[in-house]
Amino acid sequence: MSADLAQLVTSIAQRARAASLVLATTPPEQKNVALTRLAELIESSHETILAANVKDLAAAESNGLAKAQIERLTLNPARLAQLATSVREVVALPDPVGELLDETTRPNGLRIRRIRVPIGVIGIIYEARPNVTIDCAILCLKSGNAAILRGGKEIFHTNTAFAALITQALEHAGIPGDAVQLIPTTDRAALNTLLKLDQYVHCIIPRGGESLIRFVAENATVPVIKHYNGICFVYLDKAADAELAEKITVNAKASRVSVCNAAEQLLVHREAAEKLLPRVARALLAKNVQLRCDAASAAILEREKIALTPAVDADYRTEFLDYIIAIRVVDSLETAIATINRDSSAHSEAIVTADEKAARRFQAGVDSAAVFWNASTRFNDGFEFGFGAEIGISTDRLHARGPMGLRELCSYKFLVDGTGQVRG
Amino acid sequence: MSADLAQLVTSIAQRARAASLVLATTPPEQKNVALTRLAELIESSHETILAANVKDLAAAESNGLAKAQIERLTLNPARLAQLATSVREVVALPDPVGELLDETTRPNGLRIRRIRVPIGVIGIIYEARPNVTIDCAILCLKSGNAAILRGGKEIFHTNTAFAALITQALEHAGIPGDAVQLIPTTDRAALNTLLKLDQYVHCIIPRGGESLIRFVAENATVPVIKHYNGICFVYLDKAADAELAEKITVNAKASRVSVCNAAEQLLVHREAAEKLLPRVARALLAKNVQLRCDAASAAILEREKIALTPAVDADYRTEFLDYIIAIRVVDSLETAIATINRDSSAHSEAIVTADEKAARRFQAGVDSAAVFWNASTRFNDGFEFGFGAEIGISTDRLHARGPMGLRELCSYKFLVDGTGQVRG
Repeated sequence: MSADLAQLVTSIAQRARAASLVLATTPPEQKNVALTRLAELIESSHETILAANVKDLAAAESNGLAKAQIERLTLNPARLAQLATSVREVVALPDPVGELLDETTRPNGLRIRRIRVPIGVIGIIYEARPNVTIDCAILCLKSGNAAILRGGKEIFHTNTAFAALITQALEHAGIPGDAVQLIPTTDRAALNTLLKLDQYVHCIIPRGGESLIRFVAENATVPVIKHYNGICFVYLDKAADAELAEKITVNAKASRVSVCNAAEQLLVHREAAEKLLPRVARALLAKNVQLRCDAASAAILEREKIALTPAVDADYRTEFLDYIIAIRVVDSLETAIATINRDSSAHSEAIVTADEKAARRFQAGVDSAAVFWNASTRFNDGFEFGFGAEIGISTDRLHARGPMGLRELCSYKFLVDGTGQVRG
Repeated sequence: MSADLAQLVTSIAQRARAASLVLATTPPEQKNVALTRLAELIESSHETILAANVKDLAAAESNGLAKAQIERLTLNPARLAQLATSVREVVALPDPVGELLDETTRPNGLRIRRIRVPIGVIGIIYEARPNVTIDCAILCLKSGNAAILRGGKEIFHTNTAFAALITQALEHAGIPGDAVQLIPTTDRAALNTLLKLDQYVHCIIPRGGESLIRFVAENATVPVIKHYNGICFVYLDKAADAELAEKITVNAKASRVSVCNAAEQLLVHREAAEKLLPRVARALLAKNVQLRCDAASAAILEREKIALTPAVDADYRTEFLDYIIAIRVVDSLETAIATINRDSSAHSEAIVTADEKAARRFQAGVDSAAVFWNASTRFNDGFEFGFGAEIGISTDRLHARGPMGLRELCSYKFLVDGTGQVRG
């Protein structure tokens, strides 16, 4: 059984590799024909998709999944309409493939051009969000990559229905159906095989909880681009404007608590703490955010009779994904930077200050993917950054860091034109 | 013992991480002071270095290493002078850190800049070339990365002597000595620990034979940039000029056989084979290259009484690193492209043709890091590409592909300036 699975997955990967070589030189118009057809098929296939989704929902209920999880699995006509719209948005984006990145002519006359090309075959390992199936398929296709999708068992029927539409759309455009394949089993043995197929698969992107990503990183020989979640900081500098401090902290923490770019940690400069903390704390409390305080911040808030919880050590390295924030008072900008570099997940951090010099030092010294000055960490996002689409937010430092759009799904190659040059 | 080693390597990695945060904002001038001092120290320490090298050479002889291997380990005053020169050349290169990669202002007024930053901590795993110790140390330092070096046991004494000079040079410039550290043991357990320290180490670059690289790729949770060797192709098109065909094939194959960008495989279009093959074959034979031929190429050469060896299947996927080339006749440009995409290692391939359309199709269709038109594969090299220095030639598709210079040793981060923007 396990040998059969390994053979099945190897065959999927081999066919994906063959399709990727075709896709690499498929013209933009042809890829857009497939994408446009997919949008139409999503619109005309509500019944089929929702019927498949109902099967997954029934299984989810009988398996006792939590309400929030079931909510995440659930499709409805409005969500499907939105999905079709997002496919059309990708049609409208510029094709990244073939873009000239740099060009040089060497003293010996060799003309060297570096051009953007697809990576090749990308494996996406994800959990139970059905939109990921469509999002990843269309971004890989637009960027000329073959995709191998392996979703969670909770959305297996929905994914199978989507995969059938994708295949139809590809074939309608004359693109090999193998360009996007769903692994037709959620058996762990199939995943284990995929993670080792570095001969055919060039990149794995795991999307989901930390344990999934860690499992993939530990077991893959295929290069992995990790999308861990965020332990993001807001730092209120000595020179922070009180209104901005409140507005940015509340937005970073409470506008959406379940996402990776939400703030989990608040640092306040000692010289500004008396002035800023009570105001910011009251605003957070008004949004039902629990405040977990160190001794210094607790002392200030207690004097003002503001409700708080004493923090424990683990709070300072926790991604709460909840209406909770950990608060510390720091002695200096440098302490803030050092604290962030030690305790953050290097995802998104913000400084609130009117002092440009402090902001520049913070942006230089903080070693995170995105460092904000007087703006919310919540903006770390491919759409907000103007990429038009994103496959996720990389927490790696190699290849892509921060939001990954179409360009970040590409590699490059060198084209070298000569007139008979040989090396001495 | 093994627990002690794990603790030792973990401590090295933690200190490297701390040093990397300092290095990330160390000004170019200060890094250049350290590099210049290192060049001086290499020049003034010939006696110490050569005494250490003699110890390694004595061990190599008593361990019965092959002559070519011993030659590779051997330092002498001329090689040391060359090494000092290469350090000074890196001083002269532009600093990659802080370069603005792109900039955009969003409709909401957010100004987003993507700037080049060091990766962080880079581990280099290599074998028995003592120059790698200096090359990797200086390239990591110049690009603002902390380096952890783990060389082979064959050059342990030489490496230890070099590491002492590097530490002196760093401290002379006021840079933490931990910015470049040599693992002071070649025990495999220490390497195994290093490969899993993804909390502190951001990238591993293995330099050496395929088995070393594969071991690292299979055991690391730290991202690896692989530098496998090359199975490189020269394709002589229907429209190839005979003189260029000869010149480029001979250079690609025989100018230096032991390197990754040397050609191992020759494809010839059927319609040009009668004309081109005898001439090219004679020129290769004159350089003592053995010809391993398929039936079609053998038939042509036999008619001309040219010495050949019938090829076996494995020859078509072998990196000979020797005076051997495998030869096949193909029916078309498309067959050449498909053969290369199936059998090459996607490193460096060349087409010889006077037909620009064929050349462009070859460059588009061949999925390799560097694709040459009328030039030798031997040019796939950081110096030849004008990078000024190289840490190797990546065979990966993520992060860096082909020659890796200072820019390829960097990541990027986003600096976002706002005026109080929050997300709706």
